[in-house]
Amino acid sequence: MSHASKPSFHGVIPPVVTPRTADGAVDTASLEKLTKYLLDGGVTGLFILGSSGEVPYLTNAERDTVIRTVAGVNAGEVPIIAGACEQTTARTVEEARRLVGLGADAIVATSQFYAISDIAETDTHFRSLHAALDVPLFAYDVPVRTHFKLPLPLLVQLAQDGVLAGVKDSSGDDVSFRQLLLATRGLPDFAVFTGHEVVVDGALLGGAAGVVPGLGNVDPAGYAALYSAAKAGDFAEAARVQDRLAGLFDIVYTPTPGRVSPGAAGLGAFKTALMLLGVIDTNVMSAPMTALNDAETAAIRGVLERSGLL
Amino acid sequence: MSHASKPSFHGVIPPVVTPRTADGAVDTASLEKLTKYLLDGGVTGLFILGSSGEVPYLTNAERDTVIRTVAGVNAGEVPIIAGACEQTTARTVEEARRLVGLGADAIVATSQFYAISDIAETDTHFRSLHAALDVPLFAYDVPVRTHFKLPLPLLVQLAQDGVLAGVKDSSGDDVSFRQLLLATRGLPDFAVFTGHEVVVDGALLGGAAGVVPGLGNVDPAGYAALYSAAKAGDFAEAARVQDRLAGLFDIVYTPTPGRVSPGAAGLGAFKTALMLLGVIDTNVMSAPMTALNDAETAAIRGVLERSGLL
Amino acid sequence: MSHASKPSFHGVIPPVVTPRTADGAVDTASLEKLTKYLLDGGVTGLFILGSSGEVPYLTNAERDTVIRTVAGVNAGEVPIIAGACEQTTARTVEEARRLVGLGADAIVATSQFYAISDIAETDTHFRSLHAALDVPLFAYDVPVRTHFKLPLPLLVQLAQDGVLAGVKDSSGDDVSFRQLLLATRGLPDFAVFTGHEVVVDGALLGGAAGVVPGLGNVDPAGYAALYSAAKAGDFAEAARVQDRLAGLFDIVYTPTPGRVSPGAAGLGAFKTALMLLGVIDTNVMSAPMTALNDAETAAIRGVLERSGLL
Amino acid sequence: MSHASKPSFHGVIPPVVTPRTADGAVDTASLEKLTKYLLDGGVTGLFILGSSGEVPYLTNAERDTVIRTVAGVNAGEVPIIAGACEQTTARTVEEARRLVGLGADAIVATSQFYAISDIAETDTHFRSLHAALDVPLFAYDVPVRTHFKLPLPLLVQLAQDGVLAGVKDSSGDDVSFRQLLLATRGLPDFAVFTGHEVVVDGALLGGAAGVVPGLGNVDPAGYAALYSAAKAGDFAEAARVQDRLAGLFDIVYTPTPGRVSPGAAGLGAFKTALMLLGVIDTNVMSAPMTALNDAETAAIRGVLERSGLL
Repeated sequence: MSHASKPSFHGVIPPVVTPRTADGAVDTASLEKLTKYLLDGGVTGLFILGSSGEVPYLTNAERDTVIRTVAGVNAGEVPIIAGACEQTTARTVEEARRLVGLGADAIVATSQFYAISDIAETDTHFRSLHAALDVPLFAYDVPVRTHFKLPLPLLVQLAQDGVLAGVKDSSGDDVSFRQLLLATRGLPDFAVFTGHEVVVDGALLGGAAGVVPGLGNVDPAGYAALYSAAKAGDFAEAARVQDRLAGLFDIVYTPTPGRVSPGAAGLGAFKTALMLLGVIDTNVMSAPMTALNDAETAAIRGVLERSGLL
Repeated sequence: MSHASKPSFHGVIPPVVTPRTADGAVDTASLEKLTKYLLDGGVTGLFILGSSGEVPYLTNAERDTVIRTVAGVNAGEVPIIAGACEQTTARTVEEARRLVGLGADAIVATSQFYAISDIAETDTHFRSLHAALDVPLFAYDVPVRTHFKLPLPLLVQLAQDGVLAGVKDSSGDDVSFRQLLLATRGLPDFAVFTGHEVVVDGALLGGAAGVVPGLGNVDPAGYAALYSAAKAGDFAEAARVQDRLAGLFDIVYTPTPGRVSPGAAGLGAFKTALMLLGVIDTNVMSAPMTALNDAETAAIRGVLERSGLL
Repeated sequence: MSHASKPSFHGVIPPVVTPRTADGAVDTASLEKLTKYLLDGGVTGLFILGSSGEVPYLTNAERDTVIRTVAGVNAGEVPIIAGACEQTTARTVEEARRLVGLGADAIVATSQFYAISDIAETDTHFRSLHAALDVPLFAYDVPVRTHFKLPLPLLVQLAQDGVLAGVKDSSGDDVSFRQLLLATRGLPDFAVFTGHEVVVDGALLGGAAGVVPGLGNVDPAGYAALYSAAKAGDFAEAARVQDRLAGLFDIVYTPTPGRVSPGAAGLGAFKTALMLLGVIDTNVMSAPMTALNDAETAAIRGVLERSGLL
Repeated sequence: MSHASKPSFHGVIPPVVTPRTADGAVDTASLEKLTKYLLDGGVTGLFILGSSGEVPYLTNAERDTVIRTVAGVNAGEVPIIAGACEQTTARTVEEARRLVGLGADAIVATSQFYAISDIAETDTHFRSLHAALDVPLFAYDVPVRTHFKLPLPLLVQLAQDGVLAGVKDSSGDDVSFRQLLLATRGLPDFAVFTGHEVVVDGALLGGAAGVVPGLGNVDPAGYAALYSAAKAGDFAEAARVQDRLAGLFDIVYTPTPGRVSPGAAGLGAFKTALMLLGVIDTNVMSAPMTALNDAETAAIRGVLERSGLL
């Protein structure tokens, strides 16, 4: 990314998965290949240390390794957005500053978790993060993890006050998502991204700036094509691409229910697909998550073949 | 509706609100006017005794009054879909049969509630309802009320087995919604409706059969126009209409948070808007819900004026 | 119960299960035997049409059969408390009045469910029920079903205002339970019951009026002995009896997880134990719940033998 | 604590609050005074870096300051149990090892949070922690923060396998609590503690090893007296002391609902009471939590006076 100009946040910004070697270490060689694969696929940003990157499972040393590796390959080509995944304000500030020091062009942060908080404290939380950081701040709305939906009026106020540069929405609240788009339409520097892989056409139709698709690790070019069609106003084509990608998303349903955790099922599917595509070396998960097994891997191979990726 | 042919379920099927007189009785005169207003607005079906119809608050006698009144005005013009709102299978069957006897062309039912159930029982529940009724059966997926999200694989199986004629989705799970559309695309007699007023353009882009919009009580012609644009493939126009309707949806945010219950806020806004439009006589709510007050009514008037409805 | 004097609500008031015949009808003969078994066991009241009575699964006609049957056997010996299980105020009033007409000495009602309500409406709800009924009104606090915990300050206010005659607490919030006992200690006509079978000793130590134990269907004499020990101040003995009953409660854990629903597991265990004890004829459940199978029945027989009941 | 013998975990082990100076730093002088106050009050252990210690809000440097300060005053008098509050296994191991190096005699850990996990991973999580640490490991069951209730069968298995030395239960599931006590009665080295301040008499009657009362910061001698009475078998006296302490617990209800967050209300009340008692210097909270104000402080003073502490 050219630091001479302000980064533009839009388009396809996949949450980069964190490959591991067979013995469980961060696999920097695979991560480098993955980064190139994504850039070659036409992504317009890289979101590292997100949920798809298994960030809660990484030690701080591993987090540093991830950002160093990705930043090295990226070499300023697209903006790097990093997740500062910590429990409360003070801890998030520490985490974010370290990541900015290592190359993050923007920070994504959730509301506080484990803490039992409320709206007023969440407002203070984001304002404190903004004041403490000198890069753009995105709110990550992910109540399935934080158990706190970021309220629409709070997001609108933080947008209007310039505290937030945008929102990565994984809330599943499509009504609030659309109302946020409408309410912030007049704010050119505020960008709303959906984190839901299979509703991107509708999100873009409604005015979203882009998408942060976990599945974009597997098919970055597909999401780039979807985004291009939508930008060109060809929503019929966007829907066709979306439908194909929604079919590909079936890989996350291949794990036997109950055999691996809900967290491991989706991320394991992405990793397994990337392994089958030759982009990363293993589908090893961060402990205590379990990797997908041979039967599940075979099922994923079938989906990839039906989707034309293999 | 012509009973000689099978009803077609598609398009705009608003969940008809239940007007009350100043002394709290079901206001049949206003309900007749509302039914005409909706038919004149171009709706393609009428969903009565839904959440927007305050069904849980109505006694059985009141429910009968509602269906008799609406069926009388409708006189077979469009299909009447009625909500059978009861706790468990046996009670739902009783309720549904009575409503079919009074003119319902199809029945909408949720999973069991108050009961502590599971997926297998829910499967049996819908199969038992289907076996007991001789009209099409729609599943109403509304976890905010039932506290049980209908699982995607269950819905797909019930669709493939011909148990369900469709789904009215108010789950807020847009990923599951899109996957349901994809998985049932080859079933011509299965219709998926969104219950979310502000994401209809995206839902139709993804292949939804239509929408059951509470806000459609207020602006039925708007939703009819949105549906027409989408059917014609003009999604840019659909999005423009959707944005206007999303602006109109702001009426549900006018009640002071905490002054009325979450249930009363949205429904109260619809009733108040209809009162201001001259369609119904009062904005009285079923007890113990509280009607919107003068300040909230004035705010709604402002939104209606900005939206061009007043 | 002598109608000449006000009923006293205290001690062991089991929530009577509803036996069914092999073909699924309410088994009045078994229900009569069960009622006698409970009265012989020393219970001080009978709570019918509660969750343990499968009330959400019963049609109104079945509910009427249950109260008529139990009231016939009881013949005024102990107070009959009946659950009016309905969605909202108006429907609950209808239900409660019918049950009072059939012999209920008191009514138990939850907050509204399926409806999306709040504290203020819940306050109005209970006050409206109290005003509409001329028998004592108990609040049933069961958030696992209603998804709304009755707030402590609301319960205290309703107690002080004479709206509520007591609370049946199945909330699992033992802190709120103790604070309610403390706050209402000076109200002689207000009675707090725990619905948790295995913490009765501690509840009585803290001042509870009694217990509504589902397991009391199986071992009414055991709960009577526990209550007597506590009333006599012998809490070491109360704890010994409680521990034995907690061991007996293991019958609810015998169903294979996932084979029957959570709702069916516990109630099915009670019914199966009563069948093995010869009190009722079958362990048939209300559809769509599934009865416990032979293996589960054998496991329950083992627990009954270890507990000395068989 | 004598390191020559194995520590015994029982009795009153308060979760030590973390005082802050007016400018927000950890107030080591106040923390030293508080530690002495607790030891003088007769506590049998010190639980630091728990929820009451605001652990999610503390940076790692602050956490180190807390354990160093408390360990310095304690000088081995009672066991120090430290909370390792981190998101996943690997991070918890790092945290726990650092705390053991600084003087922790035992570690308390929750299930993973922010992560989306399941029972099998939680089993692996605790076994991995046990394998990685050479001090006793306690499970902290606090679903209001982790949003995952530790299942009874899992806890029993981990107890039987010697993985866990005990459980600190703040689950609010009193049924599971009693069943855990029964199931682990034959395991002399397994200790179950309740975290609920107002039900300690019943918990001890049921066989709990002790209590971890946030309110024990304010009245350690009261909890010591309650524990002594129960140990002597005088449960009537235990209940009397418990009732007095439950009255004192009213300090947590003094903050105006909504003015401070739920998390800040209770902890703020403890800090404010300690300030009024002269034990610590301020009632400053970790940001973004807000300290109780003058009116709330005055209300707490009133409760302290009524309870005889002031």
